[in-house]
Amino acid sequence: MSQKMKQETLRQRNTIAEIAAKAGVSIPTVSRVLNNRPDVAQATREKVERIIKESGFVRSRAASVLRNGSSGIVDLVLPDIDNIYCLEIIRGVEEVLERTGLRMALTTTHHETQGERRWLAKVADKATDGAILLLTEGHSSRLDTLQHLKIPFVVIDHLGELGPDVPSVGATNWAGGRAATEHLLSLGHRRIAVIGGPVKFQCSVDRIAGYRSALEQAGVPFDPSLVRIGSFKQQAGYEQTQALLSLPHPPTAIFAGSDLQAVGAYSALRARGVAVPEEVSVIGFDDIMIAPMISPALTTVRQPLTEMGRIATTMLLRLIDGEPLDSIRVELPTTLVVRESCTSPTLTL
Amino acid sequence: MSQKMKQETLRQRNTIAEIAAKAGVSIPTVSRVLNNRPDVAQATREKVERIIKESGFVRSRAASVLRNGSSGIVDLVLPDIDNIYCLEIIRGVEEVLERTGLRMALTTTHHETQGERRWLAKVADKATDGAILLLTEGHSSRLDTLQHLKIPFVVIDHLGELGPDVPSVGATNWAGGRAATEHLLSLGHRRIAVIGGPVKFQCSVDRIAGYRSALEQAGVPFDPSLVRIGSFKQQAGYEQTQALLSLPHPPTAIFAGSDLQAVGAYSALRARGVAVPEEVSVIGFDDIMIAPMISPALTTVRQPLTEMGRIATTMLLRLIDGEPLDSIRVELPTTLVVRESCTSPTLTL
Repeated sequence: MSQKMKQETLRQRNTIAEIAAKAGVSIPTVSRVLNNRPDVAQATREKVERIIKESGFVRSRAASVLRNGSSGIVDLVLPDIDNIYCLEIIRGVEEVLERTGLRMALTTTHHETQGERRWLAKVADKATDGAILLLTEGHSSRLDTLQHLKIPFVVIDHLGELGPDVPSVGATNWAGGRAATEHLLSLGHRRIAVIGGPVKFQCSVDRIAGYRSALEQAGVPFDPSLVRIGSFKQQAGYEQTQALLSLPHPPTAIFAGSDLQAVGAYSALRARGVAVPEEVSVIGFDDIMIAPMISPALTTVRQPLTEMGRIATTMLLRLIDGEPLDSIRVELPTTLVVRESCTSPTLTL
Repeated sequence: MSQKMKQETLRQRNTIAEIAAKAGVSIPTVSRVLNNRPDVAQATREKVERIIKESGFVRSRAASVLRNGSSGIVDLVLPDIDNIYCLEIIRGVEEVLERTGLRMALTTTHHETQGERRWLAKVADKATDGAILLLTEGHSSRLDTLQHLKIPFVVIDHLGELGPDVPSVGATNWAGGRAATEHLLSLGHRRIAVIGGPVKFQCSVDRIAGYRSALEQAGVPFDPSLVRIGSFKQQAGYEQTQALLSLPHPPTAIFAGSDLQAVGAYSALRARGVAVPEEVSVIGFDDIMIAPMISPALTTVRQPLTEMGRIATTMLLRLIDGEPLDSIRVELPTTLVVRESCTSPTLTL
């Protein structure tokens, strides 16, 4: 949806309340008139129609979609909502949808095929105008089903590799991995460990590639023993940090694959009596809302999750309207957020 | 919904996938047959109907509701989604709905009347089967509108005072305030401060009443200078803790009105070089997912947010089915979760 269209829709939604106030009727009554419902008294209908005309109100895309048998719903399908990560995406989707006549239906699949099928059974019968999907396993058979059902969709692709025909939004993971590592190098670190997410996820591979690229450019030799792999959860950060601390020559800095991993790293370091950042620097990835709350406040690579939710929704609205996308794939930049968890390595190391 | 009904619905949703597999058709096709849609070939319909009969499948409440012109949607309306608090409620609602044919539409009002009206305009036209509302300002004119529109609703009432005719779910705030204070008293604290939420919220008043009751029973005189009021956000915890530390006779323990306030209290204490829990104990309220992540892990009073979301949804499903509620108001117990942020006061104080 273009900026102009967005403003128009916004103006129109506000106007419905104004029309209701001017006509001395309820918002639902205006809505019924707009939707050509029979259950409005003729006199009321004429009054509302007149005020609609006077107000210069143009029936919006959303309103006209609703008239033409739209569900009034856009689906957001997430693998889980245990992760604070998701809250930021939900917020972005919500921000765009609230200015339309559409609502967001939220579904969690719990990473299960059964959950995906349950959701498909619910929407197969024209119960959705379109869907935004956050995938955990790359290309899913769900996508084929959606294409078959002619349900428009956009994928928020923080993890996988999608075909060139799948509309998707992602973040610049390689650049993020590189920026995190460059920050640690600039502080003087040379023994820098990385805890990656699972290698089946393209984002993990990309971030580690960014890490290697930064090391290479700085002339620091790559040491495979400093690369650890785990899930994006806290527990993995804890376990992989323990393993790193047990190395004969442990790192002076850890680049964690997620902020939750960084929280786990903090716990492991604290359990060993290692001070952050004085003895080991820690940098995260994501910038979820806990990052500034933990102590020391976490330096991290910000993924623009809210923006990714917004862009995915704007793309989906265009697809619903049958408009072409400017680009089938959009990548948003990651940015380094410097807080208190990184400092120069101590001289003794 | 009774336990039996729940199991039945769950079984039925699983069965749809099995029927589809047996009939060699897609889940959407089974869904179309169940919903008596015309766009299924006669031979396919007969095959699916036969397998449905053989499988002993009973068309569920949800399926029959869908046939009778239901929207297939239940709305969850939140004041904001900035607070991690909301994620737990969303999860509870989702857990119950996923076993039905219904989906959850999520809307944020941003604490604004305009947001409430926008949402009402979207659902007024039978676009929802019912709503779960989290209110920030007690009784809202929204509730009257919903009653007028005959849209069933349940309020998750963590904050306000509602009339006896409003179906609602809450938590035992008084008991929670009492339990937190008793825990600190049992450790030997006598100078215990409380940071309450805004007094316009009944929950804040109730928690402070619980605090006073515990002090009274322990024979500890009530000192009004130790009672501070602020929003439930982090910043308020920071500011009120600063004020408490500036008292001529500062407290040895702080009972914060929310976990986010406790995070703010940690920051204020750290800024003054005061160790938690060695010099000042801190106890929170809510037990949101960051509570065990911060350092020291936060001792807190757990609000059963996920359970509140579940119960509210179960109540709403009964209202949608036209069944009577067992009780118009349900309160779930709060429980003390002991972690690492409280200890006995040092002898020098």
